[in-house]
Amino acid sequence: SEREGRSGSSTQSSHRLLAYSDALISIIATVMILPVAHTKVEDNEELRESVQLLLTTKIAVYLMTFLIVTMAWAAHIRLFQVIVRIDDCLALLNLACMMLITFLPYTFSLMATFPENMLGILLFCGCVMVMGVIQSVIVVYAFSRPFLLNEQIQISENQTFYKQHILKVIMRVPIMCFFASIFSFIFFPLSYVLLAIITFLPYISQCLKWCRSKAIGQVEDTPDSMVFYTYLPNEPLSKERVEAFSDGVYAIVATLLILDICEDNVPDPTVVEKQFGGSLVAALKAYGPEYLAYFGSFATVGLLWFVHHSLFLHVTKATRFMGLLNTFSLAFVGGLPLAYQLTHEFPRNSQNELEAIQISCVIIFFAGIFQLSIWVVALYSEQETLHPYVWYGGREHVFMLAKLALYPCIALGTFFLTCILSKFSTSIFHLMEITVPFAFLVLRLLVRVGLAILRFIFCPNRSNLTTV
Amino acid sequence: SEREGRSGSSTQSSHRLLAYSDALISIIATVMILPVAHTKVEDNEELRESVQLLLTTKIAVYLMTFLIVTMAWAAHIRLFQVIVRIDDCLALLNLACMMLITFLPYTFSLMATFPENMLGILLFCGCVMVMGVIQSVIVVYAFSRPFLLNEQIQISENQTFYKQHILKVIMRVPIMCFFASIFSFIFFPLSYVLLAIITFLPYISQCLKWCRSKAIGQVEDTPDSMVFYTYLPNEPLSKERVEAFSDGVYAIVATLLILDICEDNVPDPTVVEKQFGGSLVAALKAYGPEYLAYFGSFATVGLLWFVHHSLFLHVTKATRFMGLLNTFSLAFVGGLPLAYQLTHEFPRNSQNELEAIQISCVIIFFAGIFQLSIWVVALYSEQETLHPYVWYGGREHVFMLAKLALYPCIALGTFFLTCILSKFSTSIFHLMEITVPFAFLVLRLLVRVGLAILRFIFCPNRSNLTTV
Repeated sequence: SEREGRSGSSTQSSHRLLAYSDALISIIATVMILPVAHTKVEDNEELRESVQLLLTTKIAVYLMTFLIVTMAWAAHIRLFQVIVRIDDCLALLNLACMMLITFLPYTFSLMATFPENMLGILLFCGCVMVMGVIQSVIVVYAFSRPFLLNEQIQISENQTFYKQHILKVIMRVPIMCFFASIFSFIFFPLSYVLLAIITFLPYISQCLKWCRSKAIGQVEDTPDSMVFYTYLPNEPLSKERVEAFSDGVYAIVATLLILDICEDNVPDPTVVEKQFGGSLVAALKAYGPEYLAYFGSFATVGLLWFVHHSLFLHVTKATRFMGLLNTFSLAFVGGLPLAYQLTHEFPRNSQNELEAIQISCVIIFFAGIFQLSIWVVALYSEQETLHPYVWYGGREHVFMLAKLALYPCIALGTFFLTCILSKFSTSIFHLMEITVPFAFLVLRLLVRVGLAILRFIFCPNRSNLTTV
Repeated sequence: SEREGRSGSSTQSSHRLLAYSDALISIIATVMILPVAHTKVEDNEELRESVQLLLTTKIAVYLMTFLIVTMAWAAHIRLFQVIVRIDDCLALLNLACMMLITFLPYTFSLMATFPENMLGILLFCGCVMVMGVIQSVIVVYAFSRPFLLNEQIQISENQTFYKQHILKVIMRVPIMCFFASIFSFIFFPLSYVLLAIITFLPYISQCLKWCRSKAIGQVEDTPDSMVFYTYLPNEPLSKERVEAFSDGVYAIVATLLILDICEDNVPDPTVVEKQFGGSLVAALKAYGPEYLAYFGSFATVGLLWFVHHSLFLHVTKATRFMGLLNTFSLAFVGGLPLAYQLTHEFPRNSQNELEAIQISCVIIFFAGIFQLSIWVVALYSEQETLHPYVWYGGREHVFMLAKLALYPCIALGTFFLTCILSKFSTSIFHLMEITVPFAFLVLRLLVRVGLAILRFIFCPNRSNLTTV
């Protein structure tokens, strides 16, 4: 087996395995938006409150699932930053792990539907514990074949220390889940508290750490002070994997509506014959709003992807906090098709339609503002995280800012316009949908014109300098 | 604009754009399996024939959509083998193109449902024509900024010739669609004939070319003889993009069943209270078969991905014919979740259940045999397409063969076993599902033992040689 290991044919670069895992995890992260999207919202005042309660529950389940699956994904990144080469055995173990991750959303929605039944907790904790065992087996296996490991660890003298540290970090979550599952027999609210701690601790600790470092200045991390949930000191997130995961989410979200349309909106030939006198055009006209919703949501998701793509072209290193903001942005992107679908489900000029349009604006706004905040956070440590030409005062700085600010500004503008001119809300919204792609096409021109005007107004003497 | 172009900040490597396009296209290629999967098959002899007819139509639509979308994807690959760098404008034009591709499956299913109505043909042809126009704009734009182009063309002296040739090839399909849409007003069967020619011509010409080259020896391609649908002489398929597209299909197919389960199989609390006396376990037991189907299909798709991954690790260059075989394999993989779902929808030991299990075996067999044939085709020109250690007689040759042959052999074995022991068909099938992952884990060992036995029987004198 030593001979095989060094031959390079049975050990492989883990690149494609990770890309496939990212694709699987991104699909699973967004899956719980489907039950939300397929909730029938009636234009009936009596049923409205119960439907709204149901919808709120489902949205909460979606957001929580998104966070939990993203957490599992972050753990997966950390594991495969230590193990950089794989062989067949690791590939198969990883597939088993993926299977369990894809089952998490279901166990989680069981918990949400039957909060007082311990079955959901048990299934969820069971999945997490088995995943912990599989990950430990992966780590033990990889450390028994050191050529699979990260160079840093491969040349290190205290491999055994690293191995024990990583195993300790990995087993932390399953052990907490073990206690949560035991408490579910005794006093189940305690289990939920434990699960909430597991889920939010890394986020809270990250936010606190970032706030503290901003408040009292950068604290130098000593190699010993390995933070909670980390294997290697000072490891950044893998930029490739953040991109691959985001691409997966954008792709599945962009196509969510066409999946529905392809399945449900082909009329039945007998219905066309009877109700529309054989006229297919008349029958399809009824679906018109659905097509509009599809094109609108595809364009919006596509353009948000475009902004994300432009942003990450300029990013050289993704910190954990940037990854967290990216997750929030993606979670809102996941809600977009649903919001667009709602805008066309209600009668023209009803209160519901106005609300649906405003919700869409709010979702677009948040998706965009979190993208913008990734950039703002990156600017705080621009020398480490960004290419020089987008640094503050750099050649592309203003243009990148304009690109990132376009969607939040337009969404905010549309929101306030629909508040004032509520009668024309639909027209305003459609106009926005059509204008935005063209705005992106001519954005570079617009920014130049804008800068020239600003320069002409504020410092006419220096107007011969070029900054864009 | 010259300054920007050379600065490297506004022109970008197209890598991530292509990965995102691959993800979108792979989701769209498999989308038409959903209407097939959600056809309710009743265990009722009277309705059976009409349902079977409906199912056959839907399966035909799925397969045709898969081929057509794969064709659009191949055209996309060719285009971005010529244009290797992008800027914002190209990225936005590409997104517009993607939006039209995602709409193709719908227009196609309209054609299938209303074959005598010209609306489907017109919509389909309209989409293809607009795509042709966008692609032409992309080509003209890229040739006006030569730093975006392939090096080979960038240094070539007859750029204008290349440009015209590429535009001619691109416009071929839209022009044929234009005639097809005109014929739809006059005599619509002719439109279908035209569309069929467009769809199958590249496949047929490829097969014929391959057969001829095998029959009368390798014909040397002169640089002038650019084949139909090709821009550059002797261009191989991009191996990365074949992998990315395959990963997308495998990922979406592996998660298809969990999407359904997450949406539909969370019982209603009131139903649990009334029908199951508040016992959630009893309520979930009714869904048992669905979970089994999910785990079975995830494991099978995951392991087929694993075989594909192992195969493409050894491939250095993917020829067009290998790409075609890969498409066929993926089309069968797309049918897998559906087949697994069917195995659990019928009462135990019914004729329908037996048929569903046998259909699953047939689909697994074909998905596996097409993977195997990719390797066999690659072996014909092994010096160009494969790494030396898997060449015939190479160190890993037998092991790779065993990996690729495992699924076809097991599927065939299960099929014949269920024919003979039809009473135990379900047990045999489940046993197969559980055994296969372990068989992959110990495959290297099994192959070694097998080879040792073979050597011991046939040439006991040379048993001290090691070949694996």
